[in-house]
Order: sequence, then C-alpha cells, then structure tokens
Amino acid sequence: MITVIGFDADDTLWHNESIFDANHTRFCALLSRYHDAKTVETTLYATELRNLELYGYGVKGFALSAIECAIELTQGRISGDELREIVVFAKEMLRHPVELLDGVRETIEALAPAFRLFVITKGDLGHQERKLAESGLTRFFERREIVSEKDPATYRRILEAGGVQPGEFAMVGNSMKSDILPVLELGAHGIHVPYSLTWQGERAAAPEGGGSRYHSLSSIHDLPGLIRRLNAGTS
Amino acid sequence: MITVIGFDADDTLWHNESIFDANHTRFCALLSRYHDAKTVETTLYATELRNLELYGYGVKGFALSAIECAIELTQGRISGDELREIVVFAKEMLRHPVELLDGVRETIEALAPAFRLFVITKGDLGHQERKLAESGLTRFFERREIVSEKDPATYRRILEAGGVQPGEFAMVGNSMKSDILPVLELGAHGIHVPYSLTWQGERAAAPEGGGSRYHSLSSIHDLPGLIRRLNAGTS
Repeated sequence: MITVIGFDADDTLWHNESIFDANHTRFCALLSRYHDAKTVETTLYATELRNLELYGYGVKGFALSAIECAIELTQGRISGDELREIVVFAKEMLRHPVELLDGVRETIEALAPAFRLFVITKGDLGHQERKLAESGLTRFFERREIVSEKDPATYRRILEAGGVQPGEFAMVGNSMKSDILPVLELGAHGIHVPYSLTWQGERAAAPEGGGSRYHSLSSIHDLPGLIRRLNAGTS
Repeated sequence: MITVIGFDADDTLWHNESIFDANHTRFCALLSRYHDAKTVETTLYATELRNLELYGYGVKGFALSAIECAIELTQGRISGDELREIVVFAKEMLRHPVELLDGVRETIEALAPAFRLFVITKGDLGHQERKLAESGLTRFFERREIVSEKDPATYRRILEAGGVQPGEFAMVGNSMKSDILPVLELGAHGIHVPYSLTWQGERAAAPEGGGSRYHSLSSIHDLPGLIRRLNAGTS
C-alpha cells in the first residue's frame, strides 16, 4: 500500500527548465558576435558539469558558470558591461514568479486528505524556500526537504526520518535520474511525469524492463487514479 | 537543566570570516587602479546587503555581488580577464580546507556523551555539508540543520522537530545577531564565543542588561565548565 507520496518541485510542481532555457537563449545572443549558438551551448554545459560538485544546483551556480564560460569563450575580451547582463539574468531568474504546472493544485488538494505528502527538491536553499512559500502549497507537505543531491542515500535518510518503509512510498517527478532511478533502487515506487524540457544533466534512460514499481504518466492529472489502482492491486 | 546544545558552524567550529576577509583584500587589490580600498569595501558591503534576500548567505552570493560591485565601480570598463579573478577567488573559497578552531574537537568530544548536540548553520547547502563532512564532527551531531536564516521562527521549528523545550537548550555561536539574540527571545540560553573577525552584517549589541540566560566566553574551552555550573545552579 502506498501511503506516502513524495513530489519533486522544479518542473514537477512548477515551471523551471523553461526559465533556464530562455536564459540559455539570451546567453547565446549575448555571445553571438563571438561564437555560434551551438559552441556557446556546448561550452556552457561543459562548464556547468565541471562546476556541479563545487556549486551544486540552482541559479547562483548557473550564473557563475555562465560568467566563467563567457570569459573563456572570449579569451577574456568580454567587457564588464556585457557581463553585467548575466548578473541581470540571474536576478530575474531568482525573482521569476512561480507558475504551477497544469493540474498540480487540484492533484495535491485531492491527495492531501488521504496521503502523507513530502516535497523533495534540490537547488539553492533560500530560492527553493521562497518558491515553495509563493506556490501556496506549503501547508500540504508534511516534510519539505531541500537537498544537495538526490541519490539513494538521500532518499533513505528522508524515509527513515519520516518513519516510512520504501514499499509504502511513491516519488513523483520529471527527472528519471534524480526522482525515479534512486527510489526504485531503494524498493519504492517511481512515477515519472516528464516535463516538456529536460536539462542535459538530468537525462537518463528509463529502467530496463520497467518493473512493477516504475510508472510513467503523461500528466499529473492521472496521478490519483494510478495510486488508487496500485493500492487496489489492479495496476 | 540544559540537555541540548546547539552549535553554529562558521567561525564557531571552524575558521570562515578570515577566509572572506582575505578575499576582500584580494578584491580591493583587483580594483586598486580604479578606486581606493575604502570605497571598494563600502560598495561591496552595500551590494552584499542589497542582494542578501535574493542570494542568501555563502560564497556563491558573495562572488556574484563582488562581480556586480566591480562592474558598477568601473562603469562596466573592467575586463573579463580581470573579472576572471573573482571566479578564481570563489572557487578557492569553496575548496578551502576546513580548519577547526582551537579547542573545538576536545570540547565536542567532552560534551557528546552527556548532551544531545545540534549544529545549526546558514550558507550554501552543498558547501556547508562538505565542510561538516570534512570536519570529522558529523557523528557527534544528532541534528544537522542548514538553514537560510537564523531567526526565532527557525530556532522554534528546530527545537519542536527535536522535541526540545527552550529552557533546556543552549546555543553556542560567534554571532550576537544570528546565534544569541533569537534564542534568548525564545527563552533558551545564548552562549556567545566571539571570533576575531565579525562580518559587518552579523554585528549586533549584546542584550541589554544581559539576563541570566546570556553568557559570554572568550574561548570554547570554557564551555563544559559553564554548562556544568549552569546545571548546578552555581552560575
């Protein structure tokens, strides 16, 4: 029986990658007199990956990587005036209003009376806290976990702290790598709800063969029905 | 009776402000052909304060504020080559080895058998986690809380989550503003152990009159003795 449902936040509860994507485009435009967009994108991604362990996830690390990338791609010739644009991007991203995905509010409200709900997200601590507060969903989540990495050890710690057995836990999220594969490894259910865009660093193949604890939905609207069928043993 | 002791981390368990201070000096040197050190310091602090709500505490926000400040102070004339130095500073700060303050290890080891110990710190999530792991002290702390702000509401939430009454809690830290005043407000004990340097944004006056729950020590060495006297009713 599934009694506890965990939700990823960025691109599961609210739009996020679309905001990063728009700022990647602005970044390419900023550097367009130096390099073509493909070179800029490739170098930016390489810079982000190289810095991920040091910076972690979130807007501030992205901005520092973008600045480093811009300096590298122009061999230091880019001016402070041009780099100012990246600081402006970063602040706009941090101030961007929270836009819930279609169906999220109704789904959370429908599940809340019958299930313990957790939100488990990575990124900048303060930014994620502000987005959660602005979402209006805080009161539905018994546990709100902002973590630096979503690996099996992190999920195990959260389940233990909540007194939850893996078999009674389902994690819902858009990232196969961060939301699905680590919880399947623990023996929990993973419910993949893809977002229209996935950052390269979050891409992973679906689990081989799938297995009875892996599920995929095209919309979060279908989540209550899936949980009902799983708990009735008819799915 | 004090049964639970909370520790701040930066500048209480290990050196931190000395690292920021050294990088302030490097930053002033970087801009020395544009402005005197006093102007640079004043503008940097104003930039950090203005961005604090958006960026939070920690190295990444500091670096973004330093970049913004450098662009502003040179009216955009600073080059990418020069700004690269700030990215280099930031990475060095994030990689700086953890250096425990004198007496910390012995004090924690002495208190651990008899008290529940918490560590409560703000800053970048991943960076604080790495520093704690590197400190070798993780196993002594029952709760490890990395928070975005240290206000009475934050401390109340942590005490409630740990099932701790304010009267049985003592917080130890170098920041009057973040470690002492908010816990005194809740009815807990605040034990101030100043560090040799205090960032302007953390300075605050000692509580008026002091009161029996406010204590000041010149060294963490004296902590076990103070707790013993407080619990014996002789201090």
